[in-house]
Amino acid sequence: MTLSMYSASVPVFKNMLGNLRHCLDKAAAHAQARKFEPSVLIESRLAPDMLPLRKQVQIACDASKNGLARLSGVEAPKFDDTETTFEQLMERIDKTLAFLDSVPRDKIDGCEDKDITFPAGRDVTRTLKGEAYLLNVALPNMFFHVTTAYAILRHNGVELGKGDYLAGGKV
Amino acid sequence: MTLSMYSASVPVFKNMLGNLRHCLDKAAAHAQARKFEPSVLIESRLAPDMLPLRKQVQIACDASKNGLARLSGVEAPKFDDTETTFEQLMERIDKTLAFLDSVPRDKIDGCEDKDITFPAGRDVTRTLKGEAYLLNVALPNMFFHVTTAYAILRHNGVELGKGDYLAGGKV
Repeated sequence: MTLSMYSASVPVFKNMLGNLRHCLDKAAAHAQARKFEPSVLIESRLAPDMLPLRKQVQIACDASKNGLARLSGVEAPKFDDTETTFEQLMERIDKTLAFLDSVPRDKIDGCEDKDITFPAGRDVTRTLKGEAYLLNVALPNMFFHVTTAYAILRHNGVELGKGDYLAGGKV
Repeated sequence: MTLSMYSASVPVFKNMLGNLRHCLDKAAAHAQARKFEPSVLIESRLAPDMLPLRKQVQIACDASKNGLARLSGVEAPKFDDTETTFEQLMERIDKTLAFLDSVPRDKIDGCEDKDITFPAGRDVTRTLKGEAYLLNVALPNMFFHVTTAYAILRHNGVELGKGDYLAGGKV
């Protein structure tokens, strides 16, 4: 097998979103066991001007689905940012995974040199080739928000380890 | 250009380590401006049982150089984990970047199906094909430690934004 734009994108996004879903599941169980409101975790942030857990999960999903949509030309579903519970956040991940699964391999393979224009701040866009966009923007962005979600949970005492982040607790 | 094991690894590791170096540079300037001991940041952690900034930077380097070493068969330099200052941590990044630059492209391209055996906890190893190892272990591991380093700095009030993480402040 040769590495391709598809194999370097869809399975990676799916793997990491699945691991994030697993971490949220453990976080929900932790809140229940300790008898505190899950929303305390969902609204937690690492700094006053950083985004809360809720938003980290929403953006991890969006970085994945919008990244794939731009590379493939397949329109991504739009999700309102209305999730307030762990169940709803996991449902958003599931909807994102379903979209990732629906994008045909041949719409992504070969898009290395395709011009991808994407938002880079308010009223600003940038254009990169497909390969640079995937490797330097879409993947790093997804990893950023998955890791920050993990860090918020760890900071708040949820028992997670590297195996949860890397492999959804399966290693 | 077609995506390859080289183009999906060396430039990505280099880009993110360069961005991490930039974040450390801003952190050092922040400590100096605010007149506090830089070691306060260097020893900071997000949870008592998480690793401090120092260690996040060391492992971000190791995930990159050891990942590349396993894929290419080129031996990586060993670094003692003795860094205690921002200057020394940035020097470790520079040494890692020099190693990444030294690995010939043809030692990495085509290693998709090569068996890669790597440590997975104490006294345990796992074996994956090159492609799965790069996409599901080496890259996620590097991104984890770069993002956690960023999160530790943000949590402690260093003025950083997504542009510092994604592009070393160049966007």
